[in-house]
Formats: sequence, structure tokens, C-alpha cells
Amino acid sequence: MIDAVTLTRELIRRPSVTPADAGAMDVVEQTLAGLGFTCRRMKFGDIENLYARYGSARPNLCFAGHTDVVPVGDAAAWSQGAFDAEVVDGVLVGRGAVDMKSAIAAFAAAAGRAIESGAVKGSLSFLITGDEEGVATHGTKKVVEALQAEGEVIDHCIVGEPTSAESFGDMVKVGRRGSINAEIVVEGVQGHVAYPHRAANPVPVLVRLLARLQDRMLDEGYPEFQPSNLEVTMIDVPNTATNVIPGVARARLNIRFNPSHTGASLASWMEEEARAVAEGFKGSVTVKPAISGEAFLTEPGPFTEVVSGAVADVSGQPPELSTSGGTSDARFIRALCPVVELGLVGKTMHQVDERAPVDEILKLQTVYERLIARYFETFSAA
Amino acid sequence: MIDAVTLTRELIRRPSVTPADAGAMDVVEQTLAGLGFTCRRMKFGDIENLYARYGSARPNLCFAGHTDVVPVGDAAAWSQGAFDAEVVDGVLVGRGAVDMKSAIAAFAAAAGRAIESGAVKGSLSFLITGDEEGVATHGTKKVVEALQAEGEVIDHCIVGEPTSAESFGDMVKVGRRGSINAEIVVEGVQGHVAYPHRAANPVPVLVRLLARLQDRMLDEGYPEFQPSNLEVTMIDVPNTATNVIPGVARARLNIRFNPSHTGASLASWMEEEARAVAEGFKGSVTVKPAISGEAFLTEPGPFTEVVSGAVADVSGQPPELSTSGGTSDARFIRALCPVVELGLVGKTMHQVDERAPVDEILKLQTVYERLIARYFETFSAA
Ligand SMILES: [Zn+2]
Ligand SMILES: [Zn+2]
Repeated sequence: MIDAVTLTRELIRRPSVTPADAGAMDVVEQTLAGLGFTCRRMKFGDIENLYARYGSARPNLCFAGHTDVVPVGDAAAWSQGAFDAEVVDGVLVGRGAVDMKSAIAAFAAAAGRAIESGAVKGSLSFLITGDEEGVATHGTKKVVEALQAEGEVIDHCIVGEPTSAESFGDMVKVGRRGSINAEIVVEGVQGHVAYPHRAANPVPVLVRLLARLQDRMLDEGYPEFQPSNLEVTMIDVPNTATNVIPGVARARLNIRFNPSHTGASLASWMEEEARAVAEGFKGSVTVKPAISGEAFLTEPGPFTEVVSGAVADVSGQPPELSTSGGTSDARFIRALCPVVELGLVGKTMHQVDERAPVDEILKLQTVYERLIARYFETFSAA
Repeated sequence: MIDAVTLTRELIRRPSVTPADAGAMDVVEQTLAGLGFTCRRMKFGDIENLYARYGSARPNLCFAGHTDVVPVGDAAAWSQGAFDAEVVDGVLVGRGAVDMKSAIAAFAAAAGRAIESGAVKGSLSFLITGDEEGVATHGTKKVVEALQAEGEVIDHCIVGEPTSAESFGDMVKVGRRGSINAEIVVEGVQGHVAYPHRAANPVPVLVRLLARLQDRMLDEGYPEFQPSNLEVTMIDVPNTATNVIPGVARARLNIRFNPSHTGASLASWMEEEARAVAEGFKGSVTVKPAISGEAFLTEPGPFTEVVSGAVADVSGQPPELSTSGGTSDARFIRALCPVVELGLVGKTMHQVDERAPVDEILKLQTVYERLIARYFETFSAA
């Protein structure tokens, strides 16, 4: 029988800071193989990935997660080594304790019990990557593409990201906003401030463009979503002399958007505004958009009810179904099937002394057990 | 008899790049002492300054200029050493050939001839600084303050800056626009783009402020002046991560203004606009203005007619009376007396291969001779 806390500690002791694996994926693979899973390692670039499946029948319920962790940060500020994984006063401390080695261990422990009890009337699978915290180009995205190409069917997916906000089980994520970055470059003509007619200052054009972009109310929200939001994250107009009109002005921005928009619709809106402010300007205005992910929503229905019910079985009340927060690998998996994210309280993730109470890891394991049971009760044809 | 070209070459061979003097002021002092001037060196900080006067009666016509020069720039691109001062095909090449060692030499040569011919019915003086191209804090400003304190009277002043635009004698400067710099700092609260309600992005506030400032038509001009003009010269919103809302945004701007405004009126306008955009903002908006000089005009009258007449005597037509271009030390001297600027064609100033045709240096000497003669004919009580 797998002990979720012991397995979490074993995983934390592999310092798998992206892109390092440090043996973490081997621990996962051996654990799942021991439960009877068929394990396939999928290496893309330097990144270790794993797809493991128990059973061949449908429905196939997949657990998705990542073994990689963010850097330690200020090592001296930790109360113990970031990879020591000691339990102090009932709290497990270590990088990955919340995000999200604990969730992998809890689902593995739950899976072992579900298999033993005969609850798995279909298939269980694991999609585990070593590249979620990094550029994520050789991780879940590539695994999903490979599985799609070979016709592998996953019916529903649970992502183990820390989704609880204040207390255990208060929130699950049923969608995510989309995200698009854009770089804006305005090229003018450098000159002397006393002779502006010989120069073309790019700043007024950039300022006008940013004002137009930031002053547009993108939307007032979307069912289950916050309003879309644009933030300028960088402006660069380098210049040391107070009497020189600069030659170039750059800015970067990020938009988090709900399903009112697509990355493409926002990209063409920005390009249109750039053309508008460039009118009559001697220089050039360029917008380079880069879509990180589209907005998506797993509509309320039997699957979200399975998840809510499992949480309520343990915490006593159903969680909030939210779409807030940053992006996750759910943005790739939603191409395969409906996705819900469910994990521990996220407060200490990415911080010094990242930590999870032992009893919450065990509660998460119980929630996952209940979720597997309810899932096959709901979706199994048998 | 002083030869203006020989003296210019001697001066150029002293590489007096601000704040270095390299013996240049000694050359000026010895030359003027040789003509009977009473010379007073005035050293402020590390800067050499000279006030020299011939005669004690009024009116006192002063010539003001600077011995310092801007750096060589790309030395390899010069056709000869920047301080070699060789004449090639009738053109004297060297740093300071135009701005403005030639003008000092030409006025000294003219003064010698005027003294000899008995044209000086009053006094001639020289106010020469070694800090015009630099920060200018220990130069003409300090000399003017010292002369004012001791009650020294200067009735009119000619500044020898290169003022001709396209051809010799086509333009003199009868005023200058004022100049004010401002630094704007908007401090907000850093955060993650996915959680904007926890952060306060300073960029929208800075963009709104810059848009308000740059969209105001300051004026449509002023008699003898171009319209006032504002240029944003720098913006700095440092940030490397695309998912971080920045905590601080900075900008710098410069306004060149005509007598429709004062430095103080523009400073309080900018501060007012800053207060307006700061309303409802969690952070702070600060404007730090620094007035470099106020706008001023030497009204058309007997003195400008003396100058115009002297130019017309040599070139055949009166010059345009202009107020265009950058600032000069005239902004300090105008506290003492009316000022007109008159010198060579400025095209090659501050550039590689700065150069002046020998015949134009000699023409400038003749203009200055005619100017001294006409001046005392017009203003001398005798
Ligand atoms: Zn994570
Ligand atoms: Zn100069």
C-alpha cells in the first residue's frame, strides 16, 4: 500500500528543478509499475515525460501533473534544506510539497486503493511531465500531440495543481483565462530636442498606442470568468542625454482574457490600433504578438459534479468552481478532453518554506479516492 | 597686429575638452594683455574664466565666448588630428574651428585694430569661460554673478557662437527659447499579471500623464519665436518577466519654450497634471522639474541695427534675426545687458572634421571691426 506522505518526501528529495529530473520520474514510474500500470517514458529534448495507463477499457480517467519544481530562491531563508523534506509539527516542508509532488503521490496512493477495491471500471492513467515550470515546450504539449497522433483516448482529466485558495477544498479550477504577450517597437528618427522637425520622436506614438490599448474596456466578464485584463509590463526608451530625442521606443504587454476573445482576435485588434497611430508618422510601428494559451471552460455538468461531490465528501461542502489565476498545463490537455484542476492550498507555492500539512496531503488522497469511485459510478457503461 | 587665423590655430592646438583648459585661457589672456586689456582670471571649481577690459568709460561693449570644446568623437574618422589645426585647400580643420575658438580670435584681431584706429570711444571687454559645453555651473553664470556683485557695468554683449545657418552672415540670434527638463517617477505596487487587483501598475498612470502633456498645444508661437515644444526623451519601466506587473515607471522630458511661458509656469502645469492623473491611484506620482534657462528676446532697436548693419557691410545684406536653436551662455548674460549672438556657419560644430574656411574667419573679423565702429558711433556720448 502506498503511503502518500512517504512518497511525497521521496519525490522532494529528488531536486528536480526545471529542466533537471534528478531521478524524480524514475520514482513515479517504479511506483506506478508496482500498481500494474503500463509505463511509457516519452523524452522530448532533455525533458523526461511519462504516460502510464492501467486497464484498456473506457472511460479513461487521467491524472496530469509535473515532477519539476521552481528554484529554491533564498536558500538561507529556508527553515530546513529545500530538499530535506522533513516533517515538523505535522507539516511537510520542501520545494514541491504543494506544487505538486504531493498531488502525484496522493493520486498514486488513491489509485492503488481504487484498483485494489475494484472501483476502476475502465482505465486510470497518469500524464506526468518534467517541464511545466519552465518553457513547457517539451512537456505536456508534446505528450498531448503524441497521444492525439496515435489515437489514444482520454475521457476526462484531473490536473493536480494547487487550486485551494484559503483552506483545503475551497476551490477547484474549471477553466483558465487565455494569455497573450505582445512586444511593441516604434522606430523613429533620433535628433536634438532643439530641432524637433529634423527628428521623429517615437514616444508620442508609443504613448498614444498604449493609451488606446489600456483605455479599452475589453469586456465586463464572461460567465464563470473575471473581466479580461491588459497590463503593460515593460517600456524601454533608452537615452542618457536630456537634449536628445530618442530614436526607438519599445514596450511589452500581457493580456489575460476570458472566452469573449481569442488570441488571434486580440492580436489583430492590437495590430489595427498600431496601424491607426502610425498614420502620418515618419517612422514605423510594429506589434509582435505571442499567444501563450487560449481561454477555455469545462462547462458545469456530470464531470464537475463528480469532482465537487468528491470534495464535499471530505470537506463537508462543495468547492467554488473558479477560472481565476495563471495558466497551467490544462491549456494543452483541454485539446483531448474536459479538464478540472484540484489540489492543495496554493499559498506557499514557489516560496521559501513551501509546505503542506500532512493531514491535508492525506485528505487530498481521500478526495482523489472518492473522485475515482464517483467517476466510474457516473461514467462507466458497465 | 593679431592674425585671426594664426590665433585660432594656436587655440585649437590646446585640446581644451571640457573641463580641461590645456593652456587655452593663457593664450587668450596673453593676447589681450598685449593689446592693453586689464585681465582678471576668475577660477570657479576647476574651471578657468577670464574677464578682460580695455578702457574704463561707458559704454562697455563685451564679447563673450568659450575656450572649451566638445570631445573629438570618432578620432579615426577625422581627416587629420582633431587638434592639428592644419589648413587644407583654404579650410581650417579642427575641434573648435567653428565653435568657437575662431570667433574669439576674430574679435581679438578686430579689437586690436579698433583700439589702434581710435574707434573705441568707451570700453571693450571679453568674458571668456572654459565651461560652456559642460554642466556650465562654474562658467559664465558664476562670472556674471561676480560682476553683478561688484557693480561692473556691461552695456551690450556680443556672443560669438556660430549662428549662421547656411552661408556666412545669413543669421544672428537675438534671443533664445527657454529650456526645462523634468523627471517623472510613478511608483506603484509590483505584482503578477494574473492578479492585477493585488498590484498597482504605474504604466497606465505614466502613459496618461505623458499623453496629457504631449497633447497640449503649448502655444502657436510668439513674435520672433517658434512654437514651444515638448519632447519625451526617456522612459524606463524595467522588467524582465512577461508575467510581472512592474512597480515603478520613470520618464524624462524637455520643453523648449518661448516667452509665452516661464520655467515656473511650466513646472506648475506639469505638477498639476501629475496630481490629476494620480487621483484614485494607489501609488505616487512625482514630477521633478529643472529649469535650464528662461526664454528671452533682445527687442529690435539700435543695438540690433548696429549688428545687422555690420553684417550687411560685409555680406551685402542684413541677417535674419532669429531665436531658433539650442541654449547658450547668452541666457546668463542677458541678466546684465542686451545680448546678440553672431558667429560663423554652425553646420560642422560638434562633428567630425569641424571646419571653417579661412576667408570666413577673416570676414567674421571684418564684421566685428565694423560692429565695434558702428557701436561706438551709435552709443558713445562723446
Ligand atoms: Zn505547478
Ligand atoms: Zn559654443
